[in-house]
Amino acid sequence: MIDSLVVKHKTQDTIVALSTVPGQSAIAVIRLSGPQAIAITDNIFKGAVLSQVDSHTVHYGKLFKDNVLLDEVVVAVFKNPHSYTGEDVIEISAHGSPYIVQTILRVLQEEGARMARPGEFTQRAFFYGKLDLSQAEAVADIIASENASQHRIAFQQMRGGYSERIKTLRQELIDFAALLELELDFSEEDVEFANREKLVALVHQAQQEISRLIQSFKLGNVIKKGIPVAIVGKPNAGKSTLLNVLLQDEKAIVSDIPGTTRDFIEDTLQINGITYRFIDTAGLRETSDALENLGIERSYEKMKQAGLVLVVLDIRESLDALCAQVKALSFEPDQKAILVLNKSDAMDNLCNAYDVEEAMATLTRLPVQEVSAKQHRNIDKLIEKIEQAVQLDKLSTNDVVVSNSRHWEALQEAHTHLVRVLEGLEQKISGEFISLDMRAALQALGRITGQVSNEDILSSVFTRFCIGK
Amino acid sequence: MIDSLVVKHKTQDTIVALSTVPGQSAIAVIRLSGPQAIAITDNIFKGAVLSQVDSHTVHYGKLFKDNVLLDEVVVAVFKNPHSYTGEDVIEISAHGSPYIVQTILRVLQEEGARMARPGEFTQRAFFYGKLDLSQAEAVADIIASENASQHRIAFQQMRGGYSERIKTLRQELIDFAALLELELDFSEEDVEFANREKLVALVHQAQQEISRLIQSFKLGNVIKKGIPVAIVGKPNAGKSTLLNVLLQDEKAIVSDIPGTTRDFIEDTLQINGITYRFIDTAGLRETSDALENLGIERSYEKMKQAGLVLVVLDIRESLDALCAQVKALSFEPDQKAILVLNKSDAMDNLCNAYDVEEAMATLTRLPVQEVSAKQHRNIDKLIEKIEQAVQLDKLSTNDVVVSNSRHWEALQEAHTHLVRVLEGLEQKISGEFISLDMRAALQALGRITGQVSNEDILSSVFTRFCIGK
Repeated sequence: MIDSLVVKHKTQDTIVALSTVPGQSAIAVIRLSGPQAIAITDNIFKGAVLSQVDSHTVHYGKLFKDNVLLDEVVVAVFKNPHSYTGEDVIEISAHGSPYIVQTILRVLQEEGARMARPGEFTQRAFFYGKLDLSQAEAVADIIASENASQHRIAFQQMRGGYSERIKTLRQELIDFAALLELELDFSEEDVEFANREKLVALVHQAQQEISRLIQSFKLGNVIKKGIPVAIVGKPNAGKSTLLNVLLQDEKAIVSDIPGTTRDFIEDTLQINGITYRFIDTAGLRETSDALENLGIERSYEKMKQAGLVLVVLDIRESLDALCAQVKALSFEPDQKAILVLNKSDAMDNLCNAYDVEEAMATLTRLPVQEVSAKQHRNIDKLIEKIEQAVQLDKLSTNDVVVSNSRHWEALQEAHTHLVRVLEGLEQKISGEFISLDMRAALQALGRITGQVSNEDILSSVFTRFCIGK
Repeated sequence: MIDSLVVKHKTQDTIVALSTVPGQSAIAVIRLSGPQAIAITDNIFKGAVLSQVDSHTVHYGKLFKDNVLLDEVVVAVFKNPHSYTGEDVIEISAHGSPYIVQTILRVLQEEGARMARPGEFTQRAFFYGKLDLSQAEAVADIIASENASQHRIAFQQMRGGYSERIKTLRQELIDFAALLELELDFSEEDVEFANREKLVALVHQAQQEISRLIQSFKLGNVIKKGIPVAIVGKPNAGKSTLLNVLLQDEKAIVSDIPGTTRDFIEDTLQINGITYRFIDTAGLRETSDALENLGIERSYEKMKQAGLVLVVLDIRESLDALCAQVKALSFEPDQKAILVLNKSDAMDNLCNAYDVEEAMATLTRLPVQEVSAKQHRNIDKLIEKIEQAVQLDKLSTNDVVVSNSRHWEALQEAHTHLVRVLEGLEQKISGEFISLDMRAALQALGRITGQVSNEDILSSVFTRFCIGK
């Protein structure tokens, strides 16, 4: 199936795109890939004759169209199959002027290239067997990674990750499935080509491994998408001050490195490689007669979505009032929450803060932290408690983690069918039925790596990409 | 003087910067330049040993720090002096992830590179004699160019432009100045080493050439900065509809090229390589008893700044009312203006539009165009009239144009002193005074190309740049 796709997609067109972020900068990189990439560039490039140079060399020269100088550029030449896509690839480093980039792209199109669709370079790498589908998907994850953990699991996936293991498992299962189907052909002779004990052991092992991968998705998903955190509390309890303090301290960490921007990140906080996404609590109705209103339906929903709820309380209120507010939230038993006793700076006697903290912990059996958001006091302790509350399994360097929901769904499907295969083998039911489930499991596993694929899967995978990759 | 600067700035540090626009994209390019560029990269690069590879080659490999994979990258190696800066240069093409870029920049700094200041790569190219100062300045103009004319004059300047000619003129003047000064040493013997006739001819020629360059600045400045256009008229005459129609049609031209953005351009219009900047006419007081108010002081100022005024009139008003509005504007004799008779779609009888147009042209002796902004009618004719009104000299491919105000000032200064030299020669005044003016002219000319420079000039030139260039 994969082979037919390769043939089908070995089209003769050459694609081009700006591969860097548009805007004014020192350099902009325009990338071409395809059988005509070198010839098209040679048509407008004055410098070396690119068709005659070695692969992996760079050449200074000028781009001309109709004797008009477009730009002075450096061109890198990658000859097939030794390129990202497996085709001939040209990378033009031009001046980072939007006008120049636009002009060069237009001229390259006039010369016969066509604008690449998002992810089309990586898609070609997939079709040329440079990457399997799971690895190709990891490329987009690498680009989107925002912290060390996301980065690590994306790279793990791109460098093979579990897809090698899945390919091996799948091949072993295929071999057995073939024997099972052979038995069917000889069903009247009542022979057994496939050793049932070995088959059970193999399927059991596969099912176990897949189960572990499915389990890892919870962590993988959290690493990839971040943990949604809701900040709730009465008006004037200091919710936005607390949020700003949390975000602000983090921003200070990265702002000393010029040339990077974090503008696209809003209201997310990175703590030790985990992203916390503060969900919009503007929807929580806030009234000054808040106590009863805290528990309204809408806030329930928000909180259920949240992996963690920070309940911001004014430490100066009475214990009775504080407990009532917590009670009104009616947490589900498994809801992770931290009570933040804010405004400890404004207490008459500061030493009482710890007493209130202890009392609330005893009364509510929830983690409690007294802070002064205003004075940035104990914010570090709150962050520690946040980490403890979330209690994520620590990610060790070699852990294999599934972070892709497409893979997770395929793994669940494979798992379901393998469990049925095991049941069938135990109950010694007809090989015909076992074979059906085995095929379904193999299909599901094959979808992960792209060994089984179709246009729908491919287009949903590659449209996630930036243009130019 | 230039030599002392080169020695002074041949520092031993290696600079690094992100040379592409920050953000998520297929590729981000990190550039290093300096004596340690290759060694620093070798420390974290696993692939080829970059110190041993040929210049102008690219190498696929992995960046590691403390055994943690940072990224899979392609590294281009440029060995001195064959690089942009003249030093060893490394360009790392990494995945376009802000997290990865930030991590790699941090690690490269830990390995001994320091973050480059804006324009510092180009500044090094200047210190290594790769570019003169005028050419270096053109690099920033190339990146900032927004249309074909800006692009052309920026490239002309980078490729030598008038700076070669200025260097030659300056050298010839220096030779004569040396003879003049020699005469001063032998003043008691009353000899004449410098042929006065030749000297007059030379200075005259220099003064003429410089005068032509000064003249070209008007066009160059317009090309670089755009022509300010004011749209004035009574409320409801259709000013903003007209502006939107003008801008909208232009935007449609470029929006079919993916990967480019024009978001940073607001209220500017490109017509045949000239930028028209619509100046803020919100300051013009608009009242419904408008006739008298059109001529208020503030609008006068705005109009005086404008290279062109579009007076938007409602064609349905009486000729008398229309003329009164124009008269109230009290244009200076040299003010360029076009009367736009709008809302011709709403006339009872359309054939009258041309009659009104003709009558107004006769009465006001100004260019007139009837349009319907609402129906996008005759907008092309209005654009033609705008171009005719501005009447810029056409820029031919080989015209040398000064667009840099620093150069323009230096040229004016040189011109003033050369005129005095000519006067002195005619009046046969003492060589001593002539020599002083000659030196001042030489200083001014030398500042253009950086043959004479100081820290102030250099820092004002290079801080205009993007980081990474």
